[in-house]
Amino acid sequence: MASHHPTEQRLTIREIAEAAGVSAMTVSRVLNKRPDVAPATRQKIEQLVAESGFVRSRAARAMRKGRHGLIDLVVLSLDSPYILEIIRGVEEALEPTGLRLVVSATHGEDQHERQWLAKISDGWTDGAILVLAQGQSDRVQSLRRRRTPFVVVDHEGELGPQVPSVGATNWAGARSATEYLLALGHRRIAFIGGSPTLGCAQERASGYREALKAEGIDVDPDLVRPGTFLHESGYEQTMALLDLPDPPTAIFAGNDTMAFGCYSALRARGVRVPDAISVVGFDDVLVAPLVIPPLTTVRQPLADMGRFAVSMLLRQIDGSPLDALRVELATSLVVRESCAAPGTSGSLQGQT
Amino acid sequence: MASHHPTEQRLTIREIAEAAGVSAMTVSRVLNKRPDVAPATRQKIEQLVAESGFVRSRAARAMRKGRHGLIDLVVLSLDSPYILEIIRGVEEALEPTGLRLVVSATHGEDQHERQWLAKISDGWTDGAILVLAQGQSDRVQSLRRRRTPFVVVDHEGELGPQVPSVGATNWAGARSATEYLLALGHRRIAFIGGSPTLGCAQERASGYREALKAEGIDVDPDLVRPGTFLHESGYEQTMALLDLPDPPTAIFAGNDTMAFGCYSALRARGVRVPDAISVVGFDDVLVAPLVIPPLTTVRQPLADMGRFAVSMLLRQIDGSPLDALRVELATSLVVRESCAAPGTSGSLQGQT
Repeated sequence: MASHHPTEQRLTIREIAEAAGVSAMTVSRVLNKRPDVAPATRQKIEQLVAESGFVRSRAARAMRKGRHGLIDLVVLSLDSPYILEIIRGVEEALEPTGLRLVVSATHGEDQHERQWLAKISDGWTDGAILVLAQGQSDRVQSLRRRRTPFVVVDHEGELGPQVPSVGATNWAGARSATEYLLALGHRRIAFIGGSPTLGCAQERASGYREALKAEGIDVDPDLVRPGTFLHESGYEQTMALLDLPDPPTAIFAGNDTMAFGCYSALRARGVRVPDAISVVGFDDVLVAPLVIPPLTTVRQPLADMGRFAVSMLLRQIDGSPLDALRVELATSLVVRESCAAPGTSGSLQGQT
Repeated sequence: MASHHPTEQRLTIREIAEAAGVSAMTVSRVLNKRPDVAPATRQKIEQLVAESGFVRSRAARAMRKGRHGLIDLVVLSLDSPYILEIIRGVEEALEPTGLRLVVSATHGEDQHERQWLAKISDGWTDGAILVLAQGQSDRVQSLRRRRTPFVVVDHEGELGPQVPSVGATNWAGARSATEYLLALGHRRIAFIGGSPTLGCAQERASGYREALKAEGIDVDPDLVRPGTFLHESGYEQTMALLDLPDPPTAIFAGNDTMAFGCYSALRARGVRVPDAISVVGFDDVLVAPLVIPPLTTVRQPLADMGRFAVSMLLRQIDGSPLDALRVELATSLVVRESCAAPGTSGSLQGQT
C-alpha cells in the first residue's frame, strides 16, 4: 500500500480549494462528509483529493513551525456513550487536518490530573479540548500559564468569560421537553436533576421550572429530585416518586442514563411506560432509540459539539480570532415512544 | 497546581516496587486499581506514589532513547459501545506508564487508511494497537516494513502465526450460550451470525453448531441466518425467522447490537421477550443490563483485552520476549432476564 502513496504530490486543503474554485471550508465539509455541499462540487473535490493522495497540510505545517501535530482530548472517564459521541466528533474533525488525537481520562482523581498536566507539558501538545464534569479552574489556570490553546466542551461559562467553550442549549431543551409533556396533558411532571453544582444541570432545572410557570403551574417541591447523572440515582429517585401520596404522571430525567434508571425502577414496580408514566431523557445517546420503549429525549448534538470545539481550537492555534468565546449549539426534542397522555391506564399498579 | 508538583522526586514503578518490597506488577495493579492486591500493600504503595508525585518512568525513558511517548490505537469507527470498552482498557493500562494514547478511526476507507499510515510514519509512534474489522493484511505488512511494534485485538489468527494478537474465546462463549438455551428446554434455537468473513463470527457459529450436535440436534438451515453485526440485520433476520412456518423459540444473536435489533423486531410483531421467545447476545456492552428485559449475553472482557494488548505491546517495545503471540481471554455467560423455558406463553402472537 505504501507504494501507491505519492508523498510528493499531496495537496493542502487550500490548494484543493483553489483548484476546485471553492472555499477551504467547502473542502473541509466534503472531507468531513457533511451534507451541505452541492453534488457536483462534492464530486470535483473528491476527485482532486483522490488524485492528490490526501490532504495533510496542517500536520506538515505544524512540524515546520516546531509544533507537534498532537491535539489532546481530556475527559473525566471513558465509561459513557455520551463521551464516545464527543470523541467521534473530534476525531472526524481532526481527520482531514492530519493532526493526531491524544485521549486521556482523569478518572476524577488528583493524581491523574497532575499526571495529565505533566504529560502535556513534557510530551507537548498543540492544544487541548477538555470535557470535564466540574469547573476545574485549577487545570484551566495551569493551561493558561503554559499558554496552551484550549477549548472546554459542555460548560456553562462558570470558568469565566475568557474561557473558550462549546455547549448546548440546555435551558431551551429542558423547556421544550417539559412543554411537550404539558401539551400531552400532564400536570404532575417530576424532574430528576443532575449534580446541582453543574451549570448544565442548573440550566435544565431552570428550563423545566420556566415551562411549568408559563402554564401557571406551581412547582411541587416533592416532584423535583436531586440526581447525580448516574443510573442509580434515576432508579432511586423514581422509587421515591412512586412512594409519594400523589405520584407524578410523567418524569423528566436530567439525562438519558438516569431515564434508563427510571425505566428499571418502573419495571421493578410493574408500572408500564408510557401507559402509566411517561419518561423523557436528555442527551440522545446512541442507545436511546434501542431501549424499549424507545426513549423520547432532548438531543444534544454531541458529535457536532466535538467538531465545533476542534474548529475553535484550530483557530486559536493558527492565531485567528474567535467569532465568540462561548458557543451553544441547539438541542432538539426527539419524540419516540416513551410518552403518552396521562391516564391512558387507570392506575400505577399491576400493569405487567 | 504546577507548583505542587515535584518533578525531581518522581519515582519509577521499579523504584516504588523496591521501596515497597513488592513486584513491579503489583505496583502496576495498584495504579490500575485492579482488585487482587492486599489492602496493606495497596496502602503502602499508594502512599509512596502520593509522596513521590507520580510514576512516569516509561515516557521519560522513551524520550531519552529517542522514542516518542505515543501509542496509537487504530479502530474502524467510533460508533459502538464495543469500541469504547476497548479504549477504556487501553487508556487505563497506559495511564501509569505516562505514554500518551493516540486514537484514530479509519472509517473503513482506503483514503483514511493511507492517511493513518502516513500519520504514523510522519508523526512517529512507539507502537500500535489495531482493532480492525477485516484481516487488513496490507496495513499489517506496512507496519512490519516500518518495524513498528503492534498488537491486533479480536482477530482469529487469520493474519498469520507471526502477528501478536489478543482475542476472546468466541467458540466456547457461543457454545455455552447455546447450551444454556438447550438446558432451558429449547430445541428450535436460531442463530444470527456476524459477517461470515470474520474469524470471530465463524468461531461463534461453530460453537453454536457444536452445542446442538452434542445434544443430538440437527442444525436446521432455516434457523441459521447471515448477519452483519449491525442493528438492522438483527431486525431483518428476526422478521424472517418469525415468518417461518415453524419459527424458533429462542434466538442467539452474534452480538448485542443485533440482539437489540431482535428486540425491536419482536416488539414490532407484539412478541414478548422472554415469554414467547428467548434472546441471547454476545459482547455484554455497557447498555446490555439497561435494556428491558436486561439482556442475557456472552461477556467478552473487552477492557481486559485492551489492557492485555497494551501489556504485549510494551514488552515488544522493551525488546522483551512475548509468552505467546496469540492470547485468548475467557468469555462468560451473563444470565439476566431475556431467556425463559419455551412455551411460557402459548403463541408467538398478540402478547402486548
